[in-house]
Amino acid sequence: MDRLKETIERIEPLNGEVMEAARARQDTLTKPLRSLGVLEDISVRVAGITGNYMPELKHKVILTMASDHGIVAEGVSAYPQEVTLQMVYNFINGGAGINVLARHIGARVVVVDMGVAADFAITNKTENFIDNKIAYGTANMTQGAAMSYDAAKQSIEAGIEVLENVLENGVDIVGVGDMGIGNTTSSSAITAFITGEAVETVTGRGTGLDDAGLTRKIEQIQKALDINTPDRGDAIDILAKIGGFEIGGIAGAILAAAAHRIPVVIDGFIAGAAALIAYELSPRIKEYSIASHLSVEAGHRAILDYMGLVPLLNLNMRLGEGTGAALGMGIVDASCKILREMATFEEAGVAEKE
Amino acid sequence: MDRLKETIERIEPLNGEVMEAARARQDTLTKPLRSLGVLEDISVRVAGITGNYMPELKHKVILTMASDHGIVAEGVSAYPQEVTLQMVYNFINGGAGINVLARHIGARVVVVDMGVAADFAITNKTENFIDNKIAYGTANMTQGAAMSYDAAKQSIEAGIEVLENVLENGVDIVGVGDMGIGNTTSSSAITAFITGEAVETVTGRGTGLDDAGLTRKIEQIQKALDINTPDRGDAIDILAKIGGFEIGGIAGAILAAAAHRIPVVIDGFIAGAAALIAYELSPRIKEYSIASHLSVEAGHRAILDYMGLVPLLNLNMRLGEGTGAALGMGIVDASCKILREMATFEEAGVAEKE
Repeated sequence: MDRLKETIERIEPLNGEVMEAARARQDTLTKPLRSLGVLEDISVRVAGITGNYMPELKHKVILTMASDHGIVAEGVSAYPQEVTLQMVYNFINGGAGINVLARHIGARVVVVDMGVAADFAITNKTENFIDNKIAYGTANMTQGAAMSYDAAKQSIEAGIEVLENVLENGVDIVGVGDMGIGNTTSSSAITAFITGEAVETVTGRGTGLDDAGLTRKIEQIQKALDINTPDRGDAIDILAKIGGFEIGGIAGAILAAAAHRIPVVIDGFIAGAAALIAYELSPRIKEYSIASHLSVEAGHRAILDYMGLVPLLNLNMRLGEGTGAALGMGIVDASCKILREMATFEEAGVAEKE
Repeated sequence: MDRLKETIERIEPLNGEVMEAARARQDTLTKPLRSLGVLEDISVRVAGITGNYMPELKHKVILTMASDHGIVAEGVSAYPQEVTLQMVYNFINGGAGINVLARHIGARVVVVDMGVAADFAITNKTENFIDNKIAYGTANMTQGAAMSYDAAKQSIEAGIEVLENVLENGVDIVGVGDMGIGNTTSSSAITAFITGEAVETVTGRGTGLDDAGLTRKIEQIQKALDINTPDRGDAIDILAKIGGFEIGGIAGAILAAAAHRIPVVIDGFIAGAAALIAYELSPRIKEYSIASHLSVEAGHRAILDYMGLVPLLNLNMRLGEGTGAALGMGIVDASCKILREMATFEEAGVAEKE
């Protein structure tokens, strides 16, 4: 059977009874009613996701999916393409921002090559690296589709498989992030196309474009949209025409997380664009998705507004890799510890409201 | 010599050279320039505070200062006064929100009785409890001063002593929080008086007042301000007339943290009002103070704006105890780990911006 279809069909609504039980418990804990605000809401949602009214998030994984983009030929990035490859080595060696922040919250980083434009001098034996290379980067989307329809579907299904493999070791929460020189360009194209916002409103400086670079980037995105005319009703076609392999992979991981009732923490702009693809395939992923932070990158707000997600953090970040997801996961973990570990009024012998 | 005066005189500006070194290092790490936003800024400030361009925040302490308030006789709180005492037991037994969040970030909680209106059935031998009781709660500030001028100064100096005692065990960062039924009333009075905002703008529902309760609270605060006429130029007089012992204690701890070059993470509204007192005594504390979160409590924004502090988090919280400070401390810790642990472009062999 069709793996993508099967995954989408498996996504059910949250467990309302368990959410009520979690909210009821929050209301008995030794604090003024609702005084922990978002922490309480998040813990209740995680209860509804997992089906456990006192969820425990012991095992944490960040999936960092990497790929290259043919659009870099048009000079849309401040960094050369080889940086994607070099940064994957940095992830594997533990020296990148995501490694530091994942260690900080006690999460494992799993790096996935979805389509980096070079070979790695490592084997699949490296525990934290998965080789799912679909191609050596996408094609230049100003000249035609970034990838074939089949490759788009394949990238989503590869993401599903990654998530399911990782789950075999027992994972309680997952975060998704990206690496890919040129991928804010693809993400802005997806964001403009799906949300209906103007390209210039949802296009930012990525890793650090100057004014001329930003103007060029906006022009190229418009050109890609004009030449490709994606099918608004088919998210796989959108991904094929103007997407990227890591974006497809992240979309697949989000869908699979929802199908397996695992909370999934979405990083910033690129992971957000992937969430848009997943959302178009199954709007229910919204209930399973936790928006970690609001990125500085221009289009991120439009993505979150479109799906009705509210970010936990706003720290002027725009690194990607899953760094925002890691910080957000720390907050989600804290919220579940509150629900599990705090004493009730009765247990602590504290008087209630008069 | 006068301990308060001595502490204030010891507070120096941040170390600009070390901040430059920290910023220079941030700019060599494998990420687009400034792409970690607030995390980078905070780490640079901690470098300037500690004098170490790669600061390590190993030992963390949250000081939760508790006291009672005579103003509760006027029906300004949704909870009975005995809750202050009961919650201190809850802190000592590890069941409160602050205990959960402090464990989450690896911090120790030290509870300080600054003036709870009852005796504790524990001795000073409990490692995480300090008895600094100045009186059995403040007097009712609608009838006259909340405490004498001497008691106000004593409470600040007790806070200095608490911080200095805690430092003896080697502490790298400290958070300050509060517990005290009635203390949002005192904090709103202080906020209105110091910032010049109208009482009704900076007065909220505290632990959960209804509309009638909120109106009564505003009236009582106005009455306390009218009857006491604090001396605008003397923060100790402000504290004496409309403050609380835990507010004095927290103010003292903030001043001492600045004097000893320790970053101090400020919790929400009550700790913020204490920071206002400290700020009036020495505006330099601002440089050493990190605003952890924006509280739901109405007056908090006015406090932060007055001092020019920007909160790290905005999670609709209003619990106090240091809960916001604990979450904020986790972010500060992450920021310093980024500065210390990330690989540079050179170390990782990653190409720089074109």
